[in-house]
Amino acid sequence: MPELRRGPITDRWVIIAVERAKRPSDLLSQDEKEAPLEPAECPFCPGNEAKTPPELFAIREGGGGANTPGWRVRVVPNKFPALEAYGELGRAGIGFFDRMKGVGAHEVVIESPDHRSELADLPSEHVRLVIEAYIQRMRELMRNHWFRYILLFRNHGAAAGASLSHPHSQIIATPIIPRNVRDRLEAARRYYDDKERCIFCDLLIQELTLGGERIVEESDGYIILAPYDSRFPFELTVFPKYHLHDFTQMNEGQRQGLARALKRALLRLKLLLNDPPFNMVLQTSPNPVPRPGKPGYWATLQYDYHWHIEILPRLTRVAGFEWGTGFYINPVPPEEAAKYLRGVKLPEGI
Amino acid sequence: MPELRRGPITDRWVIIAVERAKRPSDLLSQDEKEAPLEPAECPFCPGNEAKTPPELFAIREGGGGANTPGWRVRVVPNKFPALEAYGELGRAGIGFFDRMKGVGAHEVVIESPDHRSELADLPSEHVRLVIEAYIQRMRELMRNHWFRYILLFRNHGAAAGASLSHPHSQIIATPIIPRNVRDRLEAARRYYDDKERCIFCDLLIQELTLGGERIVEESDGYIILAPYDSRFPFELTVFPKYHLHDFTQMNEGQRQGLARALKRALLRLKLLLNDPPFNMVLQTSPNPVPRPGKPGYWATLQYDYHWHIEILPRLTRVAGFEWGTGFYINPVPPEEAAKYLRGVKLPEGI
Repeated sequence: MPELRRGPITDRWVIIAVERAKRPSDLLSQDEKEAPLEPAECPFCPGNEAKTPPELFAIREGGGGANTPGWRVRVVPNKFPALEAYGELGRAGIGFFDRMKGVGAHEVVIESPDHRSELADLPSEHVRLVIEAYIQRMRELMRNHWFRYILLFRNHGAAAGASLSHPHSQIIATPIIPRNVRDRLEAARRYYDDKERCIFCDLLIQELTLGGERIVEESDGYIILAPYDSRFPFELTVFPKYHLHDFTQMNEGQRQGLARALKRALLRLKLLLNDPPFNMVLQTSPNPVPRPGKPGYWATLQYDYHWHIEILPRLTRVAGFEWGTGFYINPVPPEEAAKYLRGVKLPEGI
Repeated sequence: MPELRRGPITDRWVIIAVERAKRPSDLLSQDEKEAPLEPAECPFCPGNEAKTPPELFAIREGGGGANTPGWRVRVVPNKFPALEAYGELGRAGIGFFDRMKGVGAHEVVIESPDHRSELADLPSEHVRLVIEAYIQRMRELMRNHWFRYILLFRNHGAAAGASLSHPHSQIIATPIIPRNVRDRLEAARRYYDDKERCIFCDLLIQELTLGGERIVEESDGYIILAPYDSRFPFELTVFPKYHLHDFTQMNEGQRQGLARALKRALLRLKLLLNDPPFNMVLQTSPNPVPRPGKPGYWATLQYDYHWHIEILPRLTRVAGFEWGTGFYINPVPPEEAAKYLRGVKLPEGI
């Protein structure tokens, strides 16, 4: 079972695969390319359902049995999970060191039966089904009170860490609130404590009133923004213009709007940058867990957070400077990125 | 001139190359490989001194003029600097946003005249000359009170972000203390305030008394350690066993010991993992800058920090999970990594 570890100097948790440890030669034979599987071999293609663990959820509008073809979106456990769902956390200290069992969940959302259709290519009605699957699985995982945060992300392209090319997203439930998430929550709460306003809502108002030079588009209740402090060239954030802390609480119309905004953002990147590798990460409020003595400390306060999706194209390498300092060198100002992305001609009617 | 930016949500500074902005096509034509330059073309090879900006420092034991062959280690300004040395910082706010001019310095330490000899290959006497060059340049940069931190790092291999294969390190002086560095300084200071002992010294004692399963070797006053919370497979830290906050204050014997320890650590990785790509980062105390009203806040307190060098092999990809959470999945427990690395047979007498 994997182990979560933290040392005394940095507030950084690491998942160590204690049992399925790799030998040096395993790491070296790892190819830099995605597994170039054809559909017949691909575990995510219809007809190969037996190659994955049994499904957790599927959207089958035409009916059909579990683990058979006919699905449009399918969610399965990750065959090689980073964290696993086993009882107690087993928190322990060894001197300076903190550790606990790698309790969690790791699921794969297979976005479409089609081996080659990305979110950017699918009709926005299909993207809405993918969002539906995200929400259903996240809500299910939020019922487990060991899980403090439910992380949704997507890797596209080998340079962004994708190991299978069939379009899929991943959901990982973690027994701690990750550092990067906590930093954001704390910044938002400090601001709310002071102003009784949402920092993200205020940020969007500022972006709109500053002339909109970092805004790629506004559509259906969403703003696609190239952030002022973009770490990566052509980095984008998809922000809801309405205030909502918890991604899973979107209503029907908001989900439809997101499907369209997300597809449009990804298609702009794909057309401008020739299908670049990217990571996509959802930032949302943590699981509202009751904690003895700390009633609702991280229970979601509906006013102090505002979910958003980050899209991080991976066109530059992260090197020693970034690892050493935690700051980034970005050769493309977000104002330029937004200008190029606004200029992309999207097909009519999408 | 580059610009430093910070947004309101995360305490993260980004360097934006405002003027030399890249177009989308520049990013796409970027090859994933290192420039496969032969020595005749390489700007870092002897005879090509005119291809770099004029040198800042060189070690020429046999004499010879500046910017001519005969050097053993040579330091030049980076031709494409991330930060540049120009007067005032120009700190400014635009609503939520903080920015300042990209004031700093960016230098390249050419480690050897030989196009192909890595630190792992060079005699430890030569590595000592490289360390000498690091210290001389860092001391010089520390005299500039705009500079709050002097970052020394090294990228090896294209996957680790190296763009030229001739062995070299880089030094960047920044006008802020980077986030990752500040986190460590604060952790060390909190511990010292409580215990009046150095957290790193205590950590090393703990590693030695816990049975040494993460220790690769002890030699000449240094410990080569696979850290308990290693982010990357075969990650190593080179710690001085003696207490010293500031890398540039090492005495002669300590420099000699480091040359040998560093060469041995890198050679173990090279032999075990077939010359893996890696990043190397020095963690040291910040520039002791007098600040009005905050006397010596970050002035180096000689008891609360302890310099060390991190070596981060890049055998796995950093993907959406890591960007989203700031925690890492490592498929090789450091205890296993240390065992493999201890088992590497080094040549006699190095």
